[in-house]
Amino acid sequence: MTSTDLRPAPSTAPAAPPPVALAARLAGIRGSAIRDLLTLTARDDVLSLAGGLPAADLMPRERIAAAADRALRSPAAVQYSETAGLAHLREVVAGHETGRTGRAIAPADVVVTSGSQQALDLLARALLDPGDPVAVEDPVYVGALQVLQAAGAEVHPVPLDADGMCVDILAARLGAGFRPRLVHTVSSFHNPRGVTMSQERRRALAGLAERYGFLVVEDDPYGLLAFDGTPPRPLAAHGERVVRLGSASKVLAPSLRVGWLVAPPVLAAAVERLKQSTDLCGSSLTQMITAELLADEPWFAAHVDGVRRENRDRAAALTAAVDAEFGAAVARSTPAGGMFCWLEFADGTDTTALLPTALEHGVGFVPGAAFSVDAAADGGPGLRSAARLCFATYPPDVLTEAVRRLARAADGRIGQ
Amino acid sequence: MTSTDLRPAPSTAPAAPPPVALAARLAGIRGSAIRDLLTLTARDDVLSLAGGLPAADLMPRERIAAAADRALRSPAAVQYSETAGLAHLREVVAGHETGRTGRAIAPADVVVTSGSQQALDLLARALLDPGDPVAVEDPVYVGALQVLQAAGAEVHPVPLDADGMCVDILAARLGAGFRPRLVHTVSSFHNPRGVTMSQERRRALAGLAERYGFLVVEDDPYGLLAFDGTPPRPLAAHGERVVRLGSASKVLAPSLRVGWLVAPPVLAAAVERLKQSTDLCGSSLTQMITAELLADEPWFAAHVDGVRRENRDRAAALTAAVDAEFGAAVARSTPAGGMFCWLEFADGTDTTALLPTALEHGVGFVPGAAFSVDAAADGGPGLRSAARLCFATYPPDVLTEAVRRLARAADGRIGQ
Repeated sequence: MTSTDLRPAPSTAPAAPPPVALAARLAGIRGSAIRDLLTLTARDDVLSLAGGLPAADLMPRERIAAAADRALRSPAAVQYSETAGLAHLREVVAGHETGRTGRAIAPADVVVTSGSQQALDLLARALLDPGDPVAVEDPVYVGALQVLQAAGAEVHPVPLDADGMCVDILAARLGAGFRPRLVHTVSSFHNPRGVTMSQERRRALAGLAERYGFLVVEDDPYGLLAFDGTPPRPLAAHGERVVRLGSASKVLAPSLRVGWLVAPPVLAAAVERLKQSTDLCGSSLTQMITAELLADEPWFAAHVDGVRRENRDRAAALTAAVDAEFGAAVARSTPAGGMFCWLEFADGTDTTALLPTALEHGVGFVPGAAFSVDAAADGGPGLRSAARLCFATYPPDVLTEAVRRLARAADGRIGQ
Repeated sequence: MTSTDLRPAPSTAPAAPPPVALAARLAGIRGSAIRDLLTLTARDDVLSLAGGLPAADLMPRERIAAAADRALRSPAAVQYSETAGLAHLREVVAGHETGRTGRAIAPADVVVTSGSQQALDLLARALLDPGDPVAVEDPVYVGALQVLQAAGAEVHPVPLDADGMCVDILAARLGAGFRPRLVHTVSSFHNPRGVTMSQERRRALAGLAERYGFLVVEDDPYGLLAFDGTPPRPLAAHGERVVRLGSASKVLAPSLRVGWLVAPPVLAAAVERLKQSTDLCGSSLTQMITAELLADEPWFAAHVDGVRRENRDRAAALTAAVDAEFGAAVARSTPAGGMFCWLEFADGTDTTALLPTALEHGVGFVPGAAFSVDAAADGGPGLRSAARLCFATYPPDVLTEAVRRLARAADGRIGQ
């Protein structure tokens, strides 16, 4: 595929082929700025802090290989399987979710999906009609924005601060008549902002969902990776109108393509029906592997502990380097889990303009504007001078070098 | 999950929860009669000819385990991967498709999907607006019908006969002003009807697509399983307005969840973008396994040869048993590949009514009415007295016993 093919189609339809108005349809789907950047940062000479890639060196490849070998002794590991997910995996996930939320989650409440991204897509297709209002955090998880835009939803941004979504601002809008169908949040160790919603705000948001009849989608891929070993209490612990999305991608491996949603049975059944026409079922092989690894509780606890400790060390290396290199020129988040650190340049540096210089200096990041809900507005000054750095992908010494390169790029820019 | 949860939601919205009008949305998605039947036929005492399950005993489990082990020596096998599919797999598929179609297929023309079902779903979402007219074969592959209905398309049935889709009937409708966006066909060894479209009709259909500007979706999971070892020449060999869907499910294993579409680059790029928001990417692990097995041409050819020979023997056992048990009371298709044999009861037996009796006698099948495009019309007398039997799942002796049970059920019914 040439690089030309990757670009969004022009907004006017081409003269002859394609047979239908693809270009017009494509214009409705916001291209992922991050994906395009990943293409740029995939060069061997670039240390990319841009991708949201968990550390492949921490993933349990040998254990996965052993589990695959065991699974493949059974014909079930090669055959089609239940659309909602293997019964054993649903039981294991229900057990984990019961432990996390303190609520009795039944296997019937769980639908296994192709990563939690598919759970989000199926939910949006099940719940939303074009024009339906929804609320998201701003800056936003781009994968959620894409899904909601593809469903034709009217997407309303709610600001974030150090305690997560500004639920008071949402409450004021609800009081003024705003009636979203659903509210999406990355409640813990936010992507891209790094913050975690306070328990007080979680309780308030769950209450608003009850009062105004909307659904909260709690997207929680990072919760288990709390640096202090204490995952934040889920939003779903505070009320029943919360659909939880979980994933094996950050705690085991993305290539398993195992995510899940936990929802009331009528909604779980709707998602299951949609999944049937979407891709029939997930992989029985990777689901058997995942079930074995999640069900081996002592092993899984030790494994997650290892990942979170290493992530903590990586975050510490990254933030130490940022402080050493930039000092007061950059304000940064203090990661407490997850994979991301958020920088804001005090002098209003346009990070989108900085990126090409950074790539020349051999380092990649994602400019804050890429996470703006309103692409046209580019996120305003706050996002325009921000950057998301992923600290999970590389070991500490590489992160230190990457930040050094970023500082040189910023200096170089000033010197130009 | 209780059996109640599997049933379609009622057509009126429940009083309190769910928060939004799920039931109304569900009413727009036709539940799969086949899926519900599979639930019934999953009992241990029932020999089910109902499912479209390839033979798990013929799938190369040891080879898959060895390939998994090899793949997992590389960190790439656990990480996120390219949305359009691993480059190596796209190359291998492009090579195979070039060989099949006699046209130069580039890797950029290939998008790897989660089974070919996802290819169909993404295509429908990329190409169709609600109300857009499309044409399908009648009886129809239910998975295609579900996708097209979920996209809100206006689905027009075109009859099938022993030479596949009645392209002359489609041509007459096109002449009268019918303008479909796309026409879906299972061109070879049709599911459920078992027939294969003649080369003359393939040429004619490709020509109509050029003349009237629609896209043909050639759904071809079974082509390689031609009993005589000569896969039918694809429809895509006859024209450029044909999107081909292929799959590893029937020639390797469904649990790999590897399918693909071959389309012009602008359409492939649109599908790739939609896939990104749908599930980010497929599994690098199962794609690496699939690429290794497809690329090992001598092994793959021998493997497919073994599967098609065994399928041929199974089909022979099934049809011999049908002839011996039913004689002139049943007309049947003569399978030449694929997985299905189609029966029509000469006396107009209502096969939907026969099914419960058959299950009592320990055998399952899918009644013809389940494949009707117009569910309300129930397919008319032709489909109402028909049945789809899958001959791929069991070895010959079990198939013989299953048909014996079916004959006893039909006799028992007559005797009641």
